[in-house]
Amino acid sequence: MAAKYVYFFGNGKAEGRAEMKNLLGGKGANLAEMTSIGLPVPAGFTITTEVCTEFYKNDRNYPAGLKEEVAKNLSQVEELMGKRFGDPKNPLLVSVRSGARASMPGMMDTILNLGLNDTTVQGIIEQSQDERFAYDAYRRFVQMYSDVVMGMDKDELEHLLEKKKEERGVRLDTELTAADWKELVGKFKTKIKDVLGQDFPEDPQAQLWGAIGAVFGSWMNQRAITYRKLNGIPADWGTAVNVQSMVFGNMGNDCATGVAFTRDPSTGENYFYGEYLINAQGEDVVAGIRTPQPINKANGDSGLPSMEETMPDCYKQLADIRSILEKHYKDMQDIEFTIEKGKLYMLQTRNGKRTAKAAIKVAVDMVREGLIDEKTAVLRVAPSQLDQLLHPSLDPKAQKKVIAKGLPASPGAASGEVVFTADEAEAAAKLGLKVILVRVETSPEDIHGMHAAQGILTARGGMTSHAAVVARGMGKCCVAGCGDIKVDYAAGQFVANNGQVLKKGDVITLDGSTGEVMLGAVPTVAPQMTGDFATLMEWVDTFRKLKVRTNADTPKDAKTAREFGAEGIGLCRTEHMFFDADRIAAVREMILSDDVEGRQKALAKILPMQKGDFLGLFREMKGLPVTIRLLDPPLHEFLPQEDKDIEELAKTMGVTPKTLKNKVEYLHEFNPMLGHRGCRLGLTFPEIYDMQVQAIMEAACELVKNEGYDIVPEIMIPLVAVDKELKTLRDNAIRVCDEVIGRYGVKVEYLIGTMIELPRAALTADEIAREAEFFSFGTNDLTQTTFGLSRDDAGKFLPFYVESGLLEDDPFVSLDQNGVGQLVKIAREKGRATRPNIKLGICGEHGGDPSSVIFCHKIGLDYVSCSPFRVPIARLAAAHAVLAE
Amino acid sequence: MAAKYVYFFGNGKAEGRAEMKNLLGGKGANLAEMTSIGLPVPAGFTITTEVCTEFYKNDRNYPAGLKEEVAKNLSQVEELMGKRFGDPKNPLLVSVRSGARASMPGMMDTILNLGLNDTTVQGIIEQSQDERFAYDAYRRFVQMYSDVVMGMDKDELEHLLEKKKEERGVRLDTELTAADWKELVGKFKTKIKDVLGQDFPEDPQAQLWGAIGAVFGSWMNQRAITYRKLNGIPADWGTAVNVQSMVFGNMGNDCATGVAFTRDPSTGENYFYGEYLINAQGEDVVAGIRTPQPINKANGDSGLPSMEETMPDCYKQLADIRSILEKHYKDMQDIEFTIEKGKLYMLQTRNGKRTAKAAIKVAVDMVREGLIDEKTAVLRVAPSQLDQLLHPSLDPKAQKKVIAKGLPASPGAASGEVVFTADEAEAAAKLGLKVILVRVETSPEDIHGMHAAQGILTARGGMTSHAAVVARGMGKCCVAGCGDIKVDYAAGQFVANNGQVLKKGDVITLDGSTGEVMLGAVPTVAPQMTGDFATLMEWVDTFRKLKVRTNADTPKDAKTAREFGAEGIGLCRTEHMFFDADRIAAVREMILSDDVEGRQKALAKILPMQKGDFLGLFREMKGLPVTIRLLDPPLHEFLPQEDKDIEELAKTMGVTPKTLKNKVEYLHEFNPMLGHRGCRLGLTFPEIYDMQVQAIMEAACELVKNEGYDIVPEIMIPLVAVDKELKTLRDNAIRVCDEVIGRYGVKVEYLIGTMIELPRAALTADEIAREAEFFSFGTNDLTQTTFGLSRDDAGKFLPFYVESGLLEDDPFVSLDQNGVGQLVKIAREKGRATRPNIKLGICGEHGGDPSSVIFCHKIGLDYVSCSPFRVPIARLAAAHAVLAE
Repeated sequence: MAAKYVYFFGNGKAEGRAEMKNLLGGKGANLAEMTSIGLPVPAGFTITTEVCTEFYKNDRNYPAGLKEEVAKNLSQVEELMGKRFGDPKNPLLVSVRSGARASMPGMMDTILNLGLNDTTVQGIIEQSQDERFAYDAYRRFVQMYSDVVMGMDKDELEHLLEKKKEERGVRLDTELTAADWKELVGKFKTKIKDVLGQDFPEDPQAQLWGAIGAVFGSWMNQRAITYRKLNGIPADWGTAVNVQSMVFGNMGNDCATGVAFTRDPSTGENYFYGEYLINAQGEDVVAGIRTPQPINKANGDSGLPSMEETMPDCYKQLADIRSILEKHYKDMQDIEFTIEKGKLYMLQTRNGKRTAKAAIKVAVDMVREGLIDEKTAVLRVAPSQLDQLLHPSLDPKAQKKVIAKGLPASPGAASGEVVFTADEAEAAAKLGLKVILVRVETSPEDIHGMHAAQGILTARGGMTSHAAVVARGMGKCCVAGCGDIKVDYAAGQFVANNGQVLKKGDVITLDGSTGEVMLGAVPTVAPQMTGDFATLMEWVDTFRKLKVRTNADTPKDAKTAREFGAEGIGLCRTEHMFFDADRIAAVREMILSDDVEGRQKALAKILPMQKGDFLGLFREMKGLPVTIRLLDPPLHEFLPQEDKDIEELAKTMGVTPKTLKNKVEYLHEFNPMLGHRGCRLGLTFPEIYDMQVQAIMEAACELVKNEGYDIVPEIMIPLVAVDKELKTLRDNAIRVCDEVIGRYGVKVEYLIGTMIELPRAALTADEIAREAEFFSFGTNDLTQTTFGLSRDDAGKFLPFYVESGLLEDDPFVSLDQNGVGQLVKIAREKGRATRPNIKLGICGEHGGDPSSVIFCHKIGLDYVSCSPFRVPIARLAAAHAVLAE
Repeated sequence: MAAKYVYFFGNGKAEGRAEMKNLLGGKGANLAEMTSIGLPVPAGFTITTEVCTEFYKNDRNYPAGLKEEVAKNLSQVEELMGKRFGDPKNPLLVSVRSGARASMPGMMDTILNLGLNDTTVQGIIEQSQDERFAYDAYRRFVQMYSDVVMGMDKDELEHLLEKKKEERGVRLDTELTAADWKELVGKFKTKIKDVLGQDFPEDPQAQLWGAIGAVFGSWMNQRAITYRKLNGIPADWGTAVNVQSMVFGNMGNDCATGVAFTRDPSTGENYFYGEYLINAQGEDVVAGIRTPQPINKANGDSGLPSMEETMPDCYKQLADIRSILEKHYKDMQDIEFTIEKGKLYMLQTRNGKRTAKAAIKVAVDMVREGLIDEKTAVLRVAPSQLDQLLHPSLDPKAQKKVIAKGLPASPGAASGEVVFTADEAEAAAKLGLKVILVRVETSPEDIHGMHAAQGILTARGGMTSHAAVVARGMGKCCVAGCGDIKVDYAAGQFVANNGQVLKKGDVITLDGSTGEVMLGAVPTVAPQMTGDFATLMEWVDTFRKLKVRTNADTPKDAKTAREFGAEGIGLCRTEHMFFDADRIAAVREMILSDDVEGRQKALAKILPMQKGDFLGLFREMKGLPVTIRLLDPPLHEFLPQEDKDIEELAKTMGVTPKTLKNKVEYLHEFNPMLGHRGCRLGLTFPEIYDMQVQAIMEAACELVKNEGYDIVPEIMIPLVAVDKELKTLRDNAIRVCDEVIGRYGVKVEYLIGTMIELPRAALTADEIAREAEFFSFGTNDLTQTTFGLSRDDAGKFLPFYVESGLLEDDPFVSLDQNGVGQLVKIAREKGRATRPNIKLGICGEHGGDPSSVIFCHKIGLDYVSCSPFRVPIARLAAAHAVLAE
């Protein structure tokens, strides 16, 4: 059977269907579908994507028989429309549009009014009885065609048009007359001949094949190739070409054009949402030169007459189509229509883009309306979208004055007075003031200030800088790496690129979802997980298999996460507890001690406080699993680095500044990320981990004994590279645990496991699993070591990497499945080979990234753990992972 | 067949053989062998290592039948010796010794004189006619046995002995009489009973089984377990027990004892080397209480009569045995002998330990003598030993006053005046002074000073710190991480732990092979690769398959390496060239430029100098392959960090200190190892790599065109993590190469490849190999990232790791085959899958480590590359790898 290259649609009959997107492209398939279900679609035909593939396979030659098929289909259109292509009296004009499977920037979009030349324009004048309309259409065609098909610099013709307006002393295109346009058409053609050395084609057939060739040619232009590369679209998908008879919304006041959504794409509310313009072309709606009018009163009263009022018949017909389309597609549709002389035509339908809020409402409503099932509803909401709903956000109606822009490091919005140190932030918070902490960059010493602040603004650091990571963990808004500002601590101010100077105490607002920094307090609205959102999440939980835990260091974090559905704590970072004002002194005393006894004395002071921390966490989690990571950061993070601060602290601690300074210098590291931290601390200073394990087990035993809890603490040893490290520390921990359990005389189980965050740990997971009851993949550090990339330093080149396509994604945001993912898989296989029931989870930032969550499901991990505010996102992604199987 | 547990030897017949080391242990096997070949060995028997294994398998019970076998063998000994165990008149005394396959510290060594009690001592008196001898032997036995078998604190008895000497007013044991010893034996036994609550065993059978049990028990003591763990010796090897009739060298002046080597173990010279003591036991020779006498005049004239003179018959017999043993074992032997009443007995023979120099001379001589073949000769020299020969070393005869000890970071020895800055070092060197550069730690800025200095001493940093690595690369002596000294730049001095203050200008000597720092100038001797060494290395090259290249940055390094047999340059680090005084200004100008044009202008100044570098290298290497790595370190390494230095430089460069300081701050990195370096620089500042590639290719083309060279430069791109990085940079490099080649109008081939030094590169080597003609494993950085371990910071815990057995070796010294090695293997497999003929080498520090070289051979790499001074070591290790197959 010879291949079929062209699919006809028109007059209620179409050779294509909605399901044939691969062959006909999205636009062509939907035009065919609408035609088939009886909607008024201007007749036309679609040249298939296979032609595109053949075209490139055969050295840019069309397959044999295509010309004949196109000619045949064009005849059919002529017949249906009662017009003929190139006819001087009653010419058929067509549009030519590309249409790939997925919308693809960089490709040729649209050529309208094709078929016009000096002869046929006369026919249009005759038919429309509107010379100005006809020449306006003609000149638009010449501009578009010369630009897109012939490669003419469009400014050249635009320049002629501007000159003409100057000459005529007018400002708007609409003020030009038929004669003006006619004259310009001539000038345009002369200019084209001058510049390109070739005539503008008069022959409509030449025009048509020129346009078709341009669509296919644009499939291989540089922008399209780059876009496909970045988005993993194979080159052999190809594009289709849609040739459709023109209808005009600008032939008089009984004409109109409009766009509409079958529901409100912003809120999801179930009313017919849209706007239209009388006597206008589609371009005009988009260009925004005239204010469009609402299609009905449900869209609010703009003071302008609605379509329902001005064109009641057409409106009724459109409203019926809305209902037909929703029942047919079972999803909210985004449609384009044109009314030519009182007759409605549908030019496009596709699934409408929507906000997260609308996505949820539409999905839940449609289940209630019986249009879709719960599974479909869950798949209708993109996990990444949820982020919009989980943080306070700027009131969209508010005015704002943006003074700088940085990275959208942690979503949400917040206003407050500018402060420059963590201590100032804390002091101000105690006075009930709201502050924004502004730093060049943050360090663990600033944690208390970050807690106290409403939001954090840093001049340096990337999406996964300390500020960004901690802020996301806290669910606190953060704009990071804002190179637009210069922070001057000495002067107590920062200067924005626009010269604006902000002093301590000045109020600013941050939008962590856009990276914008605004002057003054911009009003915000708070997040909620109720109503439809809650309903959808219930359905989500019936599908997913992966458990979702949270990274939480405080009972407050834990509570938030539980409200968002967390099923345990996957990572409690004990070091954050060390920075609390009431214990940092003891921590520093410990660090300054030169012997075990001194350290133990200081640790004894911390013990009751750590125990208190764990009591709080265990109570909040009510028996859900809690994984506690023993001390991880290098000790120098607990000491000040600047001379001034060292002197101050020395005074407080009653040691000489020199002693303190020597210690700081001794502890200095060239690469702290790869330094004396994690289990290396636990091995060289075993008393630290002993204290922490004691605090964990005493808290657990106390709750089991006195409050009847059922708790199985999970003790996690960080930064293991070698099995013997874990063996030694596990033996130590068991000794302490058993001592505590014996002392309390209760039965408490506990698990001891490790982070897999170094390549060597993953590669030797078979050996390490002998000593570990669980693995938690610390994919932040694993990404840093696998790439040899410091997340705190990557800001200088990583954005360039992503923009230029060297990397598809920031590997600190979305797990690098190809590289880091290999190590996760190796560790899973080797770990399970040694210990088949080993519990496997992930606790890096990736635990809240949808594609990473799906990866974790696919490779069979037991859980992911993420920031409290990303728990719903992870839950939804985990459900998607199952439903996609 | 029932197992045989005991092997007899005596009177020219033995059940064992030298080859039965696994079953009989080293000592037992050689005693049997010596017996068989007719040497006079006191009769005895060996209880096999299998008994040890059975003993532990059966809950510390001996296998059935052992007692009977021992009894039977003991009777045979009695019969041969004409004495009986426990006989009151003519008692047989025995020694009991452990003997594992390999000599193993921590195990029970020896019990002598076993069989003595209050009755048998009378028999010994009768036989020896020497009461003092008999009681001395008795008390020695009680001391040894109570300590080793019964667990008595030996100080308790030692204390009684001291008291006795005080009481008798004497200083030496030899001054005590028979009566004193007799009295002490009684007191010893009473004390033992008091302390342990049990009697000292009188029954010789009980003594014997007590001693046998102690030997087997010591196999599982903590020290032995730890030693086995560290040395990878399996617990089930077990130890043998040797029971042998005693002979006495201390029964009068016709008795003697001695140790000897069949050749000089220090020089390898072929004469009979050894010493002896008349009327003495083996212990006395070791204890050094009396000065031993030479066995012949060839050992030099000590003024004491030689054995050749005093006991000519025994000497002749011993000299004959020497010759028999060498012919039999075909290796230099280390022997122990005893002469009892004019009769010679052999107590031990084993292959003698020797210096590198001796190892080579003995091996080469034995080939000439027809004793061994060349293959055996090559295997006789341990690659790691060669290090001794490849650096200037301290004159062993010189006096030295050690004031501090650090890590033996780069071997060799050097003396010079203390200086504290690189500039001082350079200035002094220009004046012809020899200096030792003393720094807290070094950085790339110090390179010129390190070049200028004779040696480097740092207070901080490990075996692979900057100082250590660079010094090894330069073949320059270095003591690193010397915590014993406090450097005070401000005061221009350092203070040693012993309080000694060293000022600028004071002379010290470093021994980089021991880590010692000495006062004043200690004389040294220079290395040579001539004579026997050269002969051996010729044989080496006939066996090895792995090529050996060198890491060299300068023509001088390259020359040294070629003299040591390097077959190319595997790593030329171009950044070291950037620090030269005449170009650092242009480098800094480049860094301070804010735009491409500024950078290009500065780079244009560097171009001719870089080209000069490569001309020099290519000429020196005469067409051998040269791999040049493009710029790798982060740019901040080229700028000063201290305020004072910044201000100074700003003045020189004509910019404001603020501008410079801002740039320094902007370039600051938290983890420079994981920062903006390597190909990340090449991608963000392509003009830098373009300049370097141009310099390489212009140099190559010029030599090909004008001097007829045949050069295939290998351009190496560092720190690749992602295939697209390499693709982009390779495309750039090809463009530049082809431009230069076209300009010169010559035909020059070139290769472009990459370092594999990040886990991600290894894991995705299949993708990366598409763009790489060679891989060079940068195992330094690969180790850092795989372990998550900064070599500059690891000094605080890595020594603890190695000492405590958490790690078997420092992974920066010996390649971690289990972890990092897996990545190397993965990369090899994936790389070859994509490009079967891809060239594979290694250029980390491990390229000069013997076990790492053997690993590289095993997994099929093409070459290793190492410091010039380690080239012979790598060559020898590569030969061993082949011969071990």
